[in-house]
Amino acid sequence: MTLDPKRTVAELKELRRLTGDENGAQRVAFGGTWLSARAWLRAKLEELPVEMHTDAAGNFWATLKGDSERALVIGGHLDSVPNGGWLDGCLNVVAGVEILRRIVTQYGGRPPVTVRLVDWADEEGARFGKSLFGSSACAGTLDMDEARKLTDKTGTRLPEALQACDLEFESVKDSGVELKSAAAYIELHIEQGPVLLDLDLPLAAVLGTFGVERHAITFRGQAAHSGSTPMNRRKDAFLAAARMSPEIYAITDRNGGVCTIGSCTTKPGIVTSVVAECRITLDQRHLDADALARMLAEAKAASERFAMEGGMTVEWERLWHIEPRPFAPELIELCDEAIKETCGVSHRMPSGPLHDAAEMCGAGVPTVMMFVQSLHGISHNKIEDTKEEHLEACVVAFDRLAEKTMTWIKHSA
Amino acid sequence: MTLDPKRTVAELKELRRLTGDENGAQRVAFGGTWLSARAWLRAKLEELPVEMHTDAAGNFWATLKGDSERALVIGGHLDSVPNGGWLDGCLNVVAGVEILRRIVTQYGGRPPVTVRLVDWADEEGARFGKSLFGSSACAGTLDMDEARKLTDKTGTRLPEALQACDLEFESVKDSGVELKSAAAYIELHIEQGPVLLDLDLPLAAVLGTFGVERHAITFRGQAAHSGSTPMNRRKDAFLAAARMSPEIYAITDRNGGVCTIGSCTTKPGIVTSVVAECRITLDQRHLDADALARMLAEAKAASERFAMEGGMTVEWERLWHIEPRPFAPELIELCDEAIKETCGVSHRMPSGPLHDAAEMCGAGVPTVMMFVQSLHGISHNKIEDTKEEHLEACVVAFDRLAEKTMTWIKHSA
Repeated sequence: MTLDPKRTVAELKELRRLTGDENGAQRVAFGGTWLSARAWLRAKLEELPVEMHTDAAGNFWATLKGDSERALVIGGHLDSVPNGGWLDGCLNVVAGVEILRRIVTQYGGRPPVTVRLVDWADEEGARFGKSLFGSSACAGTLDMDEARKLTDKTGTRLPEALQACDLEFESVKDSGVELKSAAAYIELHIEQGPVLLDLDLPLAAVLGTFGVERHAITFRGQAAHSGSTPMNRRKDAFLAAARMSPEIYAITDRNGGVCTIGSCTTKPGIVTSVVAECRITLDQRHLDADALARMLAEAKAASERFAMEGGMTVEWERLWHIEPRPFAPELIELCDEAIKETCGVSHRMPSGPLHDAAEMCGAGVPTVMMFVQSLHGISHNKIEDTKEEHLEACVVAFDRLAEKTMTWIKHSA
Repeated sequence: MTLDPKRTVAELKELRRLTGDENGAQRVAFGGTWLSARAWLRAKLEELPVEMHTDAAGNFWATLKGDSERALVIGGHLDSVPNGGWLDGCLNVVAGVEILRRIVTQYGGRPPVTVRLVDWADEEGARFGKSLFGSSACAGTLDMDEARKLTDKTGTRLPEALQACDLEFESVKDSGVELKSAAAYIELHIEQGPVLLDLDLPLAAVLGTFGVERHAITFRGQAAHSGSTPMNRRKDAFLAAARMSPEIYAITDRNGGVCTIGSCTTKPGIVTSVVAECRITLDQRHLDADALARMLAEAKAASERFAMEGGMTVEWERLWHIEPRPFAPELIELCDEAIKETCGVSHRMPSGPLHDAAEMCGAGVPTVMMFVQSLHGISHNKIEDTKEEHLEACVVAFDRLAEKTMTWIKHSA
């Protein structure tokens, strides 16, 4: 079969019909709808000469053996958030099936290098609050002590949910064996942001996933009567916290990246008192580790200046962090070429959201991603969408990237 | 008896011992401790040739008849917030008793004008959330429909609580008859702020109570992923709200008065999303009605500018307001004189907090207040305190004000 991008669009619609409802996609990992999505995927792949199995972490692998064991891995995830979009994660899996079809035909079932399609388990973390579960288990970075304790809303623990899918929690890292022969990892995804939409471009080569620094910042001033306390006598914790907001915009102006103050709480939080304590959360992201460290240092310095000027204290608490994961420069070039050959124009951009690709990259597998434009710049929502012409273009471009990467693997042996 | 300020301090300590505990004063209106404080007050007054009664709103009146029916009214309140300070409200009542003693002695029981001491009921509003209850009923400004529905934490309605004290809710405004002969109203209070402390001055003549504009301001931007949304594509409701904070300081720099953003809430309020909706409360106070209106207009204009610049909407909701209540210029002069004669130096300042004096002033009774320095600049707290030498000075100065006001009443007939 020659590559048929329209079939990919038709199969994505079929999957949507089978596993979504009027509120969007409902393929939450380890649930019945997710399992039926996998059964659907398996049926599609049964037409091809591929070996299929589920690994110790619940990731589903389909392997087309090549002359070399060194493998091109194409990854995605069928699982979705509740009321999710129809493309997030599964676009790549379904496009991957089409690419396998093309490779099987072109090479008479025996390509020069091995090609594997992986459907990662629980990329979204929608049920247990831990994203990248399957890929982090496979990469060996999963924190077992933390994951062992995770429970869903009904009190079911993650190990129990895995058991219901015939998986043994304590063995999930055994899935790492799958990466032994992995020579490159490629992933296609909708952008989930407005950058390509704003540029009116269909596709982008992704430079890597942002590193993230996530902190809670608490300013502690002094409660005081809103009527009897002169302005110059106030230790107004909200004022200090508020001054951080324009500051984070200035920090990104200087350094690039993105910063977000996503929440603000005030104590005592009543109309008749100056705010004694104000807690904000700050999320900072950058593709460059040094720049991220600089952004964090600048935010800390600013907070200390605002606290000092306001006669109060400030305390930082780290909530989470992850290093930037810059992708493989040679694969970024190949991705860029594939896009230009398909659309005439390409773009290079970092990924703000995390993806399974970050885990593969962290595990030392040369990695790249391709983004396709999102309409509305929105995701994790039933209104998530991409123009059909862009979906078709991304299948063509991603297939070119797969072919180029196979050649690269062959010659970089 | 000649005026004995040390006796006032001793009686205040006696009252504290009888009606407070290790957490502070416990004289919440309409409760048992409050009633026993009133019984204590009545016992003190029984030594004097005064007529005593409780009016239709539960305000307690002690009247020393003079040659003229036109009356000097000295007001305060024995009720406190739970865990309150030992001086807030009752300083004036106890000082008033001492001044009555001095007047009785000096004029042989028959002063040139009538002198009345009033202990207002429920100034604090601690139980039912409605402050200035007794004085607003007496002034005729109490909103009966609103007050009728008030309930305390246990579900008891205000009318029921009044009935337990032998008061009929529907008749509380009959207390207005008490003001028929009121020719002047004077009130002594601790400052409840840090102004006199900062100036190292014991006493001030109060120019009036601030008018208050109280609003909730809601900025509505757009939720967006904190990783995938470029800074220039955000409609960050927290940014717009945050910009209001330095702005209110600039507004008071230009106009005087005070402004407070006392609370801030964010939606969705999660670390991974730009804030879609941010609600802040703004409390603005000024002694001058035009200036207060200007402050409000400036804040509105700024909020609209910040909303427009952020590509979002802003909505204002008025929570409460009250007009400024400037006190009687002639009585302010007399208060200032009395302070200078006592301490050598005086100060003039507005009152940020409301007091029963605001209701008397609003009812057309020429009114003035005197403030005595607060230590720590704090009130509504067991650590509320004032130096004993300042307490003694305030009794002397307030007595001088009473005498000057009696003379003023006599000659202004």
